[in-house]
Amino acid sequence: MADDEIGTEPSGISATRMEAFSDAVLAIAITLLVLDLGVRPPGSAVKQFFNAWPSYLAYVVSFFTIGAAWLAHHSLTARLSRVNEVFLRLNLLFLLIVGFLPFPTRLMADSLNQGADAERLAAVVYGVTLMVIRLAFAVMDWYSRRAHLVVPTIPDPDLEAERKKLGFVISAYLFTIVLSLVAPLAAIVLYLAIAIVLVLPRRSMNERFFRSSD
Amino acid sequence: MADDEIGTEPSGISATRMEAFSDAVLAIAITLLVLDLGVRPPGSAVKQFFNAWPSYLAYVVSFFTIGAAWLAHHSLTARLSRVNEVFLRLNLLFLLIVGFLPFPTRLMADSLNQGADAERLAAVVYGVTLMVIRLAFAVMDWYSRRAHLVVPTIPDPDLEAERKKLGFVISAYLFTIVLSLVAPLAAIVLYLAIAIVLVLPRRSMNERFFRSSD
Amino acid sequence: MADDEIGTEPSGISATRMEAFSDAVLAIAITLLVLDLGVRPPGSAVKQFFNAWPSYLAYVVSFFTIGAAWLAHHSLTARLSRVNEVFLRLNLLFLLIVGFLPFPTRLMADSLNQGADAERLAAVVYGVTLMVIRLAFAVMDWYSRRAHLVVPTIPDPDLEAERKKLGFVISAYLFTIVLSLVAPLAAIVLYLAIAIVLVLPRRSMNERFFRSSD
Amino acid sequence: MADDEIGTEPSGISATRMEAFSDAVLAIAITLLVLDLGVRPPGSAVKQFFNAWPSYLAYVVSFFTIGAAWLAHHSLTARLSRVNEVFLRLNLLFLLIVGFLPFPTRLMADSLNQGADAERLAAVVYGVTLMVIRLAFAVMDWYSRRAHLVVPTIPDPDLEAERKKLGFVISAYLFTIVLSLVAPLAAIVLYLAIAIVLVLPRRSMNERFFRSSD
Repeated sequence: MADDEIGTEPSGISATRMEAFSDAVLAIAITLLVLDLGVRPPGSAVKQFFNAWPSYLAYVVSFFTIGAAWLAHHSLTARLSRVNEVFLRLNLLFLLIVGFLPFPTRLMADSLNQGADAERLAAVVYGVTLMVIRLAFAVMDWYSRRAHLVVPTIPDPDLEAERKKLGFVISAYLFTIVLSLVAPLAAIVLYLAIAIVLVLPRRSMNERFFRSSD
Repeated sequence: MADDEIGTEPSGISATRMEAFSDAVLAIAITLLVLDLGVRPPGSAVKQFFNAWPSYLAYVVSFFTIGAAWLAHHSLTARLSRVNEVFLRLNLLFLLIVGFLPFPTRLMADSLNQGADAERLAAVVYGVTLMVIRLAFAVMDWYSRRAHLVVPTIPDPDLEAERKKLGFVISAYLFTIVLSLVAPLAAIVLYLAIAIVLVLPRRSMNERFFRSSD
Repeated sequence: MADDEIGTEPSGISATRMEAFSDAVLAIAITLLVLDLGVRPPGSAVKQFFNAWPSYLAYVVSFFTIGAAWLAHHSLTARLSRVNEVFLRLNLLFLLIVGFLPFPTRLMADSLNQGADAERLAAVVYGVTLMVIRLAFAVMDWYSRRAHLVVPTIPDPDLEAERKKLGFVISAYLFTIVLSLVAPLAAIVLYLAIAIVLVLPRRSMNERFFRSSD
Repeated sequence: MADDEIGTEPSGISATRMEAFSDAVLAIAITLLVLDLGVRPPGSAVKQFFNAWPSYLAYVVSFFTIGAAWLAHHSLTARLSRVNEVFLRLNLLFLLIVGFLPFPTRLMADSLNQGADAERLAAVVYGVTLMVIRLAFAVMDWYSRRAHLVVPTIPDPDLEAERKKLGFVISAYLFTIVLSLVAPLAAIVLYLAIAIVLVLPRRSMNERFFRSSD
C-alpha cells in the first residue's frame, strides 16, 4: 500500500521536534519585525515619529498574521498522529514563506519616503506574501487529511472555521491587492482588518468575554 | 454555562506550547536589544564609547524589564490549569508589546545625537511602552482569575506581590514620564530603578542572600 | 577501555538539551536570512525590486540548505543512544559553520552592485560554506558511528541515503565553485539545484505524493 | 531556618523552564554574531574580504566563548535539585552579560578601519566582557553550592575542572587585556587560545579521539 509506505517513519522524524522547530522559526520571525521600525524624516522629532505610522501599522499586521499562522499551525499539528517526509517538506516551505514576511514588511516601511510607485509595489508584494502564507497553510492542512496524518477521532472546529474562512480571506486579499494599486496606505488598513479576522477566535472574542460574567 | 464554554478546549491549544512560544519571543526580544548598542561620535574612540552611556543604561533597563516580564509570566502560567481562546489572544497582545520594546530602546539610544526634542520624545515613548507592558500583564492576570483558568489551590505570593506592586509601579512610571519631559536622561536612571524593583524578589535579594548563612 | 571511557557521561550532558540548543541555533540562522534581503538600486521601484532576484534566490538556497541540515541533524540525533564530550564539540563546530552561512548569503546579495570580481568572490565563498556544512555533518555522522554512540538496532535509510549522496554532492559543489569563477549568477542556480536535491526525501516527493491516492 | 526558606519554591519557578529560557538566549546570542561580519574596504573584492580576518577571528572567539558558557551552564543546571529566587536573578545577570557580547564583538570588527586607538579600546572592552562572563558564571556556581541547590550525590568532575581552570583563565584574560593595549590584533589571537582552552573537554579532545580506536 502506497498509503502505508507514507505512514512508515523510518527516519525517526518526530512531530514534536518538527513542532518545536516551527515554533522557534515563527517566534523569531515575529520578533524580528521590530528591527524594521524606524522614524520617518524630515521634520521635528515628534513629526518624524508620528509620520512613521504606516510602519507601526505594518508591524501590527505582520505580528497578528504570524500570530494567527502560529495558532492555526498549532491547531493542525496538535491533531497529527504522525508526520511523513512530504509533510515535513511542506512545513519547511510554509516556514520559508512566513520567514520571508519581515522583508515585505520592511519594504512597506521603507517605501514611505520613496513616492507612490514604491508604496504601490510594497503594498502589492506585502499583500501577496500575506495571501501566500494562508495558501501554504491550506496546502499543509489539505495534505495532512489526504495522507491520513490526522487523528480522525479528534473534532477540529477551529480548523473547520479556518477552512470556511479561507475563501473569504483569499478574496479579501485579492481585493486589497488590487486596491493597493490605487491607495496603498488604505490597503494597509484593510490588511489589518483581515489580520484581526484571522486572529479572532471562532465566535468573536467580545461575545465570549462578556458572557463569561453571566 | 458560559463559563464552562470558555473552559472547553476543543482546539487542542495547550498551555505548554503557549509557554514555549512566549518564552521564545521573550528570549529573542531580550537578546535583540544588543543590536541597538553603538558608540557615539564625535571624539576619540574612548570618548565615543563612554558618551554612549545612556544606551548602555537603556540596554540594562530593557533587559531587566523583559526579564521581570518573563518571571511574572512564568509565575502566572505555572498556575494555569488550562488556557482558552481569549487568554491566548491576550497573551499574543502581551507579546506584541514586549516584542515592540527594542524599538523605543533604539529610539532612546539614537536620540543622544539629536538634541533635546528627540531625547524627550524617546524618553516618553520608552516610558509609555514600559508601563503598557505592566498593564498588559495585569490584564492577563486579571482575566485568568476572572475566567477561572488558574488552579485555585496553589497559593501565589509572587503574583500577589506583583499585584500590590502594580499601583506603585504605574504611579512611578507616570511620574517618570512627566519628568522625562524636563530631564530625559535623569528619567532613564529612574526607569532603571523601577526595573530593579520589578526584577527583585518579594523580600529583598540582599536580605535572603545574607541570611542564608545563618 | 578507552571506548568505555568515552561512553561515560559524568558531566550530565544530555542528548535532549544538545538537540534543543542545536534546533534553536538552526532555527535562528534560517530566520536571520531575511535580514539580508533588499532591493537593488538604481531604477524605478519595480525595477529595483526585480533586479534583486539573485538575493531572493540566495535566500531560498540558504533556507533549504539549513533546512536540509536540520533534517539530517535530526535523523542523526534521533539515533544517538548517548553523546560524549567530543561529539558535543563537533556539534558546536557544525553549528559555527551553519551559523556563519548568513554572512556569505549577504555577501552574495551585496555583490550584485559591485562588479564581476565581487560576484565571483561571493559565489566562491558561498559555495565553499555550503560544501563545508555537508562535510562537517559527515564528520559528525562518521564520528558517531566510530565511537558507538548510535543505537545499532535502528535502521537508518535516511542517513545511508545521505552518505550515498555525499560524494555526489561534494563533487557538484566543487564543480559549481569552479563554474562560479566564470559565471557567478549561473552558479547560484546550480546551488539551488543542489539544495533541492539535499532537501528532497529519498524517493522523490512527487512520486510519493501522487501514489498516496492509489 | 533561613536556608529552608530559600529552598521553598512557592512561586512555581521550575529549573526546566529557566534552562529552556537560558538556552534560547545563549542560542540567539551565538547566532546574532554573524550579523557583525562584513568585508573591509578599500581595495579589490578579494582584498576587502581577507582584510576582515580579525572580524572572522572575533566571530570564532565569541562563538566558542558562548559555546563554552553554554556547556558550563548545562553542567551546572543539570546538577540543580531546585532553583530559588536569588539564583534566578543571578542567572538573568549572567544572561545579560553573555547577551552583551555581540556588542564588543562588533566593536572589535568595526575598529579595524579606525586606527590604533579604536582597536585598543575594542580589544580591552572585548577582553573585559569575556572575563566577566567567566566571573558571572563562577558566582552562579559558587552560590548554587552555598545555598545547597545542587544534588550532593552527583559528582561533577566537569565543574571541578571548570573551577580549577578559573584562576588560570582569569589570569590569562588579565594578561591579554594588558597586552591588547600594545598589540590589539595579537590579543585577539590570544583570546582565541583562551576560548579553545575553555571549550576543550577535561582531557584533551585529541587524546580521547585517537584512543577510541585502541
